[in-house]
Amino acid sequence: MELLKVATLEEAREKLFSAIQWTFLDIEEISIRSAVDKVLAEDIYSPCMVPEFPRSTVDGYAVVAKDTQGASDTLPVFLDIIEKVEIGFSSTHPLKSGECAYVPTGGMIPEGADGMVMVEYSEIFGETQVAIYSSIASGSNIISIGEDRKKDQLILKRGTKIRSQEVGTLASVGIESVKVYKMPRLTIISTGDELVDIQTETNLGQIHDINTYAIEASAKKQGFEISYIQVLKDEEDLLQKAVSDAMKDSDIIVVSGGSSKGEKDHTKKVLDGLSEPGVFVHGIAVKPGKPTILGVDVKSETVLVGLPGHPAAALILFQLIVVWLKDKFEGRPKSLQILAKMEMNVPGAPGRLTCQLVKLTPSHEGYSARPIFGKSGLMSTLTESDGYVFIDEHQEGLNVGEMVYVHLL
Amino acid sequence: MELLKVATLEEAREKLFSAIQWTFLDIEEISIRSAVDKVLAEDIYSPCMVPEFPRSTVDGYAVVAKDTQGASDTLPVFLDIIEKVEIGFSSTHPLKSGECAYVPTGGMIPEGADGMVMVEYSEIFGETQVAIYSSIASGSNIISIGEDRKKDQLILKRGTKIRSQEVGTLASVGIESVKVYKMPRLTIISTGDELVDIQTETNLGQIHDINTYAIEASAKKQGFEISYIQVLKDEEDLLQKAVSDAMKDSDIIVVSGGSSKGEKDHTKKVLDGLSEPGVFVHGIAVKPGKPTILGVDVKSETVLVGLPGHPAAALILFQLIVVWLKDKFEGRPKSLQILAKMEMNVPGAPGRLTCQLVKLTPSHEGYSARPIFGKSGLMSTLTESDGYVFIDEHQEGLNVGEMVYVHLL
Repeated sequence: MELLKVATLEEAREKLFSAIQWTFLDIEEISIRSAVDKVLAEDIYSPCMVPEFPRSTVDGYAVVAKDTQGASDTLPVFLDIIEKVEIGFSSTHPLKSGECAYVPTGGMIPEGADGMVMVEYSEIFGETQVAIYSSIASGSNIISIGEDRKKDQLILKRGTKIRSQEVGTLASVGIESVKVYKMPRLTIISTGDELVDIQTETNLGQIHDINTYAIEASAKKQGFEISYIQVLKDEEDLLQKAVSDAMKDSDIIVVSGGSSKGEKDHTKKVLDGLSEPGVFVHGIAVKPGKPTILGVDVKSETVLVGLPGHPAAALILFQLIVVWLKDKFEGRPKSLQILAKMEMNVPGAPGRLTCQLVKLTPSHEGYSARPIFGKSGLMSTLTESDGYVFIDEHQEGLNVGEMVYVHLL
Repeated sequence: MELLKVATLEEAREKLFSAIQWTFLDIEEISIRSAVDKVLAEDIYSPCMVPEFPRSTVDGYAVVAKDTQGASDTLPVFLDIIEKVEIGFSSTHPLKSGECAYVPTGGMIPEGADGMVMVEYSEIFGETQVAIYSSIASGSNIISIGEDRKKDQLILKRGTKIRSQEVGTLASVGIESVKVYKMPRLTIISTGDELVDIQTETNLGQIHDINTYAIEASAKKQGFEISYIQVLKDEEDLLQKAVSDAMKDSDIIVVSGGSSKGEKDHTKKVLDGLSEPGVFVHGIAVKPGKPTILGVDVKSETVLVGLPGHPAAALILFQLIVVWLKDKFEGRPKSLQILAKMEMNVPGAPGRLTCQLVKLTPSHEGYSARPIFGKSGLMSTLTESDGYVFIDEHQEGLNVGEMVYVHLL
């Protein structure tokens, strides 16, 4: 029996990342209308000032602010109306002390004016005058040129996951399309003599394949493109053919099952045999998920991953390795996680990073996390859980009341 | 000037929900392979036991547990090997005291056996015997019939948002397709004389339209189908035509801009004129977002929503009304939110629910939320924010150190 060369999660990630010396994520230019949830592959600088003209934030009168000094409910100031600015058009008359112009919300402030009096504090007086009942400071109710964005200002960084606000920001500066990372093409293979396809009735001893479905769902949620999906009997030549076919047009091949050290586990041999330089991690000190295999093939530029057969372990390791790798190449900052307080003590596993499934309960104090225990392989354990928390390999365990980050599943 | 009939957010939601007396969300049956992020429109019961046979969770020997009593490193128990169970096949020989069978991980436990001894605690002895070096309890390393799921057990509830675990669970019980809610078809119209299309150069006084882009992005992220998108000059007949066209095949029409009480605001008039019973909310006591309009047309079964023109207000109200409505009909439990501690005091607005934009910072204690202030209409304020927190209409404000739920944007 060959001994597994077990790496820590950090070592395994580092080896994988540094083994990828090719352009792992292609870049594509897409319309901002399809950009939500994509990750920017470029820094974005504003091509213009926003706004490009001073804008009013209220309906009312543009004035020289110091003209309104001392104005009050009982002692209005009277100003001459010289213009009514139309929304969507440039103002045309520069304004002098003693004059004002009507400007609607979003309208352009005339040259010479430095404040807006809300219409609620004014009253039309005769044909051409308005009474102002409020004293305003310079700059009141105005957004000045470039106040939102300066020309050439960095407005969005590479690695930003685009939300609706970012789409709005791009629209505001007139940018129609952006460069984003293209998602890796993924092949998912599940192996096991006990596995049958969901359409097939199971005989005693057989079960329906779970992993291709669960991993596909997790991958789609993360935006991966799916190249192939296959469920195979645990036979070396079948796996050999499937992997070598998939290497032609997949960026990542994930094989679940067949990666522990049972008699019929061909995954490591097949992945190593088909690739150059081949498999460099066989075993990660993570619980669950120890029998994980990592390798690359530089010729076809493919990442090869063997995941454990148990659904919970397969899903967690898919996140910890494959999703992590994509995020790393995207240069994404860490996404927001839920913080929670442990409801009870949980022991760790010496020398291994433990991923403990938890269920969250909200309260006014914040979330609490209850560990969900269950035999590995039970889907009910996994559906009951919101995510998992790490117990470090050097930690004895988590204590009741301790704050933990929850990695959502 | 007509006075706005201002409703609280709760009243507005209640009126809208009870005005919709038709089937708001259609139901469709889809493959579980496309089901991630969809919401179940039915309760799911398990059609079978999972597992359907007792399974081993380890490689080793199936035994009668009490045969191993007293077995230890120095004092093994010897058992006769009567079968080697193949993975994927039924075991064939019932097992009696004094006998055992080799069973791989995931293999079927023979009748009569009630525990598994891990292969690490055994040693082959001669041709047909094995020495067992460990004493095990009944049930050890076995998943019994129905331990994961009982036949006819409720396994997933209507309203569940499907994650990868749920897809895996459905696969495990052999369910290929499920009924989910079909997403509403949405038309997004943005009105304003100052708005120009993103392809068009702006003149002084004009700006690029933001809201169709930002609302579309928010809607797509939530799964809505987009029927039409239009940017219109603020003219009554244009809006009239656009809304009446859209009513033919939209479930929801959102019009942003033109809903405050400026001179050229036709939205309320148009929405009310085209619909029966028409507009029933004009103004919601929310800051920002007061000039929101709600109505329905029972004949075309369309929900009509007028949103404020300011991007931040439009995006927040889109979430608070339109996304809320979809979630309500889906029967979804509240999704997980981030809890955070306020970094400083923030005043509320008497009589209005305030939505205060915040930026989150993680620490070992949990998240802290820093209020982001800025003139309304600045996109930079919005991109800097992670979400918003509510300050209740009866609350004076939020205090530093107070725990708040953050609604992510």
